[in-house]
Amino acid sequence: MFNLDPRLARDCHFITQWPLSQVLLMDDRRYPWLILVPAIANLSEPFDLDADDQPRLWREVSTLGSFMKNHFQADKINVGALGNVVSQLHVHVIARHHNDASFPNPVWGVGTPQPYPLHEREALVTSLGDSLSRITPVSSTPS
Amino acid sequence: MFNLDPRLARDCHFITQWPLSQVLLMDDRRYPWLILVPAIANLSEPFDLDADDQPRLWREVSTLGSFMKNHFQADKINVGALGNVVSQLHVHVIARHHNDASFPNPVWGVGTPQPYPLHEREALVTSLGDSLSRITPVSSTPS
Repeated sequence: MFNLDPRLARDCHFITQWPLSQVLLMDDRRYPWLILVPAIANLSEPFDLDADDQPRLWREVSTLGSFMKNHFQADKINVGALGNVVSQLHVHVIARHHNDASFPNPVWGVGTPQPYPLHEREALVTSLGDSLSRITPVSSTPS
Repeated sequence: MFNLDPRLARDCHFITQWPLSQVLLMDDRRYPWLILVPAIANLSEPFDLDADDQPRLWREVSTLGSFMKNHFQADKINVGALGNVVSQLHVHVIARHHNDASFPNPVWGVGTPQPYPLHEREALVTSLGDSLSRITPVSSTPS
C-alpha cells in the first residue's frame, strides 16, 4: 500500500492527483518547485516502475514541465530524480529563473528553504490545482 | 544539424551512440557519471522532443540507469536534466554510493572534478562501450 514518505509529507503540500502521480508543492517560495510522486508502493528508481508506468511517469513530467515553463515564465526547467535522502521515488520539476536564489547552480542543498506565508500558499495550491486538473495527462492507454 | 555543445565535448568522452542519444562519460572519477545527449539540434528541455522521441529518451535513461545500478553496485541512481549552464538537452545518469565524495548531496557544483588518468579512462570507455552496445535500447517502434 502506498504511503507518502513522511519527509515529503512534511516539506510539501498536496496539489492534485494525476493518473499515476501525486503532484506536490515544495514549501519553498524561492522557486516554483513541484514534485511528482507515483502513488505505488516500494519504488525507489524510475526503472522500478513497470514498462507501462515508466512512460506514464515521464509524460507527467513533461506535461508538468511544459506547463511550468509557460506559467512561471521560466528560463529553464530542472528535472531531477535523486532520492539520496528520501528513497521513495519522486521527481522534482523546478522552474528556474536567471535571477533566482541559486541560478545557475542546482537548488538542492543550497541555502535555507523559505516557507510560503499561509495565505500565499493556499492561493497557490488552489490555482495550481485548478490549472493542473485541466491538463491531466491521459493515462488509459499504455504507450 | 546536431553538434555536441563545446562544453560537453570538453568535459566528457564519447562512449557510444544509442538510437536517440550519444552516451558520454563525464571525466570525473569521483563518480560513475554518464550523460545522454539526444543527437537532434536545437533541444533544450525534454519536452522539446517530439512525442515519439520523448519515450525513447526516457527508455534510454532507464536502460542506462538500470545497467549502472548493477554494474557499479550503486546505492542510488541520480537522474537529472538541468541545463542551467549548458542549455543543449542532456540527461545526467550518475551512480551514487553512500561513501562517495558528496553523498547524500547532489554532485553538481560540489568540489573539484578529478579527471581519470588516461589509461584508466581509455579502459573504462572501451569496457562501457562494449557493455552498452550489447544493451542498446530498441528504437524502431515509437511507443
